[in-house]
Amino acid sequence: MMKPLIFITNDDGYQSKGIRALISVARDVGDVVVMAPLCNASGLAHSLTGGRPIRVDNISEADGIRIYACDGTPVDCVKLGVENFCPRRPDLLLSGVNHGSNASINIVYSGTMGAVIEATLMGIPSVGFSLLNHSPEADFEPLKPYMCQIVDRVMDHGLPGGVALNVNFPEHAEGSLKGVKVCRQSMARWLDSYEKRVDPHGRPYYWLTGRFECDDNGEGTDQWALENGYVSVVPTSTDSTAYDSLGLIKSIFE
Amino acid sequence: MMKPLIFITNDDGYQSKGIRALISVARDVGDVVVMAPLCNASGLAHSLTGGRPIRVDNISEADGIRIYACDGTPVDCVKLGVENFCPRRPDLLLSGVNHGSNASINIVYSGTMGAVIEATLMGIPSVGFSLLNHSPEADFEPLKPYMCQIVDRVMDHGLPGGVALNVNFPEHAEGSLKGVKVCRQSMARWLDSYEKRVDPHGRPYYWLTGRFECDDNGEGTDQWALENGYVSVVPTSTDSTAYDSLGLIKSIFE
Repeated sequence: MMKPLIFITNDDGYQSKGIRALISVARDVGDVVVMAPLCNASGLAHSLTGGRPIRVDNISEADGIRIYACDGTPVDCVKLGVENFCPRRPDLLLSGVNHGSNASINIVYSGTMGAVIEATLMGIPSVGFSLLNHSPEADFEPLKPYMCQIVDRVMDHGLPGGVALNVNFPEHAEGSLKGVKVCRQSMARWLDSYEKRVDPHGRPYYWLTGRFECDDNGEGTDQWALENGYVSVVPTSTDSTAYDSLGLIKSIFE
Repeated sequence: MMKPLIFITNDDGYQSKGIRALISVARDVGDVVVMAPLCNASGLAHSLTGGRPIRVDNISEADGIRIYACDGTPVDCVKLGVENFCPRRPDLLLSGVNHGSNASINIVYSGTMGAVIEATLMGIPSVGFSLLNHSPEADFEPLKPYMCQIVDRVMDHGLPGGVALNVNFPEHAEGSLKGVKVCRQSMARWLDSYEKRVDPHGRPYYWLTGRFECDDNGEGTDQWALENGYVSVVPTSTDSTAYDSLGLIKSIFE
């Protein structure tokens, strides 16, 4: 029987530690094709490249694992990689492991989750993994048993059409993860602040800085799960219709 | 009494014809601050710029309308513009008018709607407008009565928290628009195909091409409304949780 094919991408770049952790989990399950950004592509959300062509570097091919680096976005990696660089249709897409949170509203900015949503639109079961630790040297080992378990269950049960999983891991001391909580996405906001500086020629420029503020952290939210030592799993929809508001909006606008 | 403040952005760039149509509608309602990308920023979705600083050009200031151009993304325009370039908090954000459809799943790639979602996260009532015509010279005049009506009703009634409006106009002959339909987002897919070419140095590169395919075009969808000559209005949520699947996903993954 042919092995399952797992497509892997991320937004931190093909050389990040997080994607290596993900590859090490996936290689026990099936053949692996990796196409990931050449450089860090964080914060690119669901952006794609249409105005210029894309380049691909063939990095390595050994032991059932092919690795490509692409000079586009995570979504480009999925579109181009699945279409042109896979020997057959992938059975599963995994994205990450992201260095930093994609829980709560961080999902809207996330290239990691952009790739996951793109594959879901293609009908491929897809999971994004993120760790609440930005360090390039973060320790991904304690996550692996959970990643294996989630991958196995997706392979066994599939996922509902149009639904992906957004999985986040809290910062952890080894062995301290308490288990998995399936949650809703909590609402929050970034209190942005731009630092204005002046260049040597007297022209101003602006650096983004910000502070994350989340009051919506009651039980049942991903924020609560993460603050309490659980792995959060949010089923995430490709349909952004606000169904609860359809009636009200009809009454005002039709 | 102080006039309402309307913040305007888009993803086609500050010089596009669509944004000029939007400014002409907004100037009758209140003071206007425009911050839009310097160049075309289509397909940038919800991406933001954190790895480099942002520059802003002061384009013009006259008759209660200030126009700035920013070398970042549409989301950058909202974050930086609202934070640093508005005399007070905006009462409304309008984005567009986009040259091309943001209906159905096109919303996920849309910089126009990225800006709208960002402002919604800030608690500002927000509407994105798009016309199903990519031409830089598209005629926006027949849209204006509808745009005025929608803006007036949002000013009068507000919008539910966390909900924005995604408004699309069909291609039209003057006077042929049949009215407004409040809809759900239809599901669809882009059948992508990358054209492989070889550069003068023998290295391959890949151009994105694609064809939009939508079978989910029954009554009640935005696709149906647009194909039948109506203006589609989809209430769009900042919460991407797949609530219908929470129970099933719990039973499998917890």
